[in-house]
Amino acid sequence: MRQSQLFTKTRREAPKDEVAKNAQLLIRGGYVHKEMAGVYSLLPLGLRVFKKIEHIIREEMNAIGGQEMSFSVLQDDASWKATERWDSEEVSEIWFKTKLHGGTDLGLAFTHEEPITRAVANHVSSYKDLPFSAYHFQSKFRNELRAKSGIMRGREFVMKDLYSFSRTQEELDSFYEHAAEAYENVFKRVGIGSVTFKTFASGGVFSKFSHEYQTISDAGEDLIYIDRSQGIAINEEVLTDEVLNELGLVKDALETAKTIEVGNIFKLGTKFSEPLGLMYKDEAGKEQPVVMGSYGIGLGRLMGTVVEVLSDEKGIVWPESIAPFTYHIVDLSGGDETVKQRADDLYQAMTARGVDVLYDDRDARAGEKFADSDLLGIPYRIVVSAKNSDDALEVVRRSNGEVLSMSRDELLG
Amino acid sequence: MRQSQLFTKTRREAPKDEVAKNAQLLIRGGYVHKEMAGVYSLLPLGLRVFKKIEHIIREEMNAIGGQEMSFSVLQDDASWKATERWDSEEVSEIWFKTKLHGGTDLGLAFTHEEPITRAVANHVSSYKDLPFSAYHFQSKFRNELRAKSGIMRGREFVMKDLYSFSRTQEELDSFYEHAAEAYENVFKRVGIGSVTFKTFASGGVFSKFSHEYQTISDAGEDLIYIDRSQGIAINEEVLTDEVLNELGLVKDALETAKTIEVGNIFKLGTKFSEPLGLMYKDEAGKEQPVVMGSYGIGLGRLMGTVVEVLSDEKGIVWPESIAPFTYHIVDLSGGDETVKQRADDLYQAMTARGVDVLYDDRDARAGEKFADSDLLGIPYRIVVSAKNSDDALEVVRRSNGEVLSMSRDELLG
Repeated sequence: MRQSQLFTKTRREAPKDEVAKNAQLLIRGGYVHKEMAGVYSLLPLGLRVFKKIEHIIREEMNAIGGQEMSFSVLQDDASWKATERWDSEEVSEIWFKTKLHGGTDLGLAFTHEEPITRAVANHVSSYKDLPFSAYHFQSKFRNELRAKSGIMRGREFVMKDLYSFSRTQEELDSFYEHAAEAYENVFKRVGIGSVTFKTFASGGVFSKFSHEYQTISDAGEDLIYIDRSQGIAINEEVLTDEVLNELGLVKDALETAKTIEVGNIFKLGTKFSEPLGLMYKDEAGKEQPVVMGSYGIGLGRLMGTVVEVLSDEKGIVWPESIAPFTYHIVDLSGGDETVKQRADDLYQAMTARGVDVLYDDRDARAGEKFADSDLLGIPYRIVVSAKNSDDALEVVRRSNGEVLSMSRDELLG
Repeated sequence: MRQSQLFTKTRREAPKDEVAKNAQLLIRGGYVHKEMAGVYSLLPLGLRVFKKIEHIIREEMNAIGGQEMSFSVLQDDASWKATERWDSEEVSEIWFKTKLHGGTDLGLAFTHEEPITRAVANHVSSYKDLPFSAYHFQSKFRNELRAKSGIMRGREFVMKDLYSFSRTQEELDSFYEHAAEAYENVFKRVGIGSVTFKTFASGGVFSKFSHEYQTISDAGEDLIYIDRSQGIAINEEVLTDEVLNELGLVKDALETAKTIEVGNIFKLGTKFSEPLGLMYKDEAGKEQPVVMGSYGIGLGRLMGTVVEVLSDEKGIVWPESIAPFTYHIVDLSGGDETVKQRADDLYQAMTARGVDVLYDDRDARAGEKFADSDLLGIPYRIVVSAKNSDDALEVVRRSNGEVLSMSRDELLG
């Protein structure tokens, strides 16, 4: 894309009320627009990143057999009353509620266990209909009291939530391990695998622990204890002597870190299937409740975490896998038509090959172009100027500043 | 996909309270789940259709230079008060509203002119920043008094809305014609081009008319007057003697039809840019308001219209372009392992070639399989049975029942 045609502009300052680094950088780069505290819209560059994250997650969910669907935001009270999550103390702070004409209360879903369990009950009757898993990407709404973490804790945010439906605990346990692997793949692929830990966290009636995926960052709100040699991490919330004994760990030998929760996986068991009547007939003809699991990743949370973890003082540093563009061609022709033509030609040739290229064809000073390029954080910057030729273009790697010399032919691969 | 693994099932009856044909068929086929009146969730088959419609619209919006983004559902009052659409009589019935802790009112967007105009104002200052257009696919919410048209009139529905930002009336007029062509392409590509008419409808302060795209259907809520020879249609709302004179038409010579509005395009002029401060400096340095247009298509409305228009007494008839799958292999082996193997092999070979195939590998009676296949409405049904061979497979075209004989090699192309 030609930067002269991209409608968004970079800006020097983020809004004064924005305290989160991720949102400051994303707003300054023209990736997102702040609607209000905790509510951000995605501008074209931001949507490109978001779609790449979505694509990676979709591939991993499909790889474990997940069937994609899309559930509604608006909720009636029926199924939520059945699970005591409509007006209980636990959730009354979280809901945004509204009303139909006539006064019926509706809620804006902050999660989707209830509607999905209810819908699935229409399609499951026999053990032959199980197991399976289904997921969606959907906006969730939470009436957060404070929303100061930028796109990492939104009042409106898109989450991928996967639900598994199994006949037995063993079947759930097996799927849970597959889901855990898929989650690890996601975090590796978006570039935070080395600083993200599968972490023991509080479970429920059905299992002692759930697992969170926690990414080390000063912007984190959680604290975890890590044993790197064994690859074990524990959320401080569940760190008791009993747990330490069970896992064979000594507290003093553990490393501590502030972390951001980027995903969680949870064995629900029959917590939702029983009250909502999601039953199946087993091989002996006996009615049994379906055994469920749920598996969530917040996409904005993940995008914000990547910015928190990988940015530097100059701006964002996107990993190639989710960068809005892979290459950033910067035309430094300064009015020299021959150089301009070389930059134009390179842009067109790379684009024709299907490479993601942003082309800074704007009539602006070199310093401004470089500052913008650093702020945007595209992995490779290609400088086209009178000082170089198509045999030896200057290619700068954003992550470490390494300067490579590559010919046009090498770039066109 | 193997039908035995698809978690949704067909059903004989739609819910009793469902009166719209589109929703009855889509629920029976397992395409959608009804959450409540006017609120439907998309099950895996429904999402496949929806994504194909979305892809077609995205291609056409990109082709006219539209930049994709994604704006929030939650709205504060500021920009809507500026345009008098927060609590005016005109819109007070439409809004769903909710509250932040502390009592601040928020609304759920029923359209996005205000937030998008406000956000764009951060990025436009000079005539050099114009013209451009930007669009998104987003859920909209309308507190409809009645919602009895299935997925055609939802309380929650996804709309693609495109906004254009121009310097002058002429620039807007020119873009408007491009948008109109893109819209015609969309309706052709989803299979309703021949029954969809660009229709004169009421305009605003800025232009005498807007244009609606109206599709002939008994399920329609609008009435239009058509002159097929000239390719002109007029919504009855604007059919006055003056309009007839202006367009050179005689009322008695016009055909009338009930229609569904599947899209609309509208010259907004400066209606939103002036109150929201979206200004630019022209070449003489003078501040001018940006001249806007808006262009909407409801995706559920469009999907429901295709069902209304193209279905028959046996079920849905999808056009190839938006069908959930192109081929439906029906295994009629009835326990014959050789036939079963032939069906399996064909499914695997077609899938390996990237063809969209649903494979009815279920252990069910032929009659049930055929009824389900007709209901689902996949364009081509391939019957694999002991009565045929891989040299002459039975291929039935869903739209007209035509029976073709094709070899396995022909199918694999």
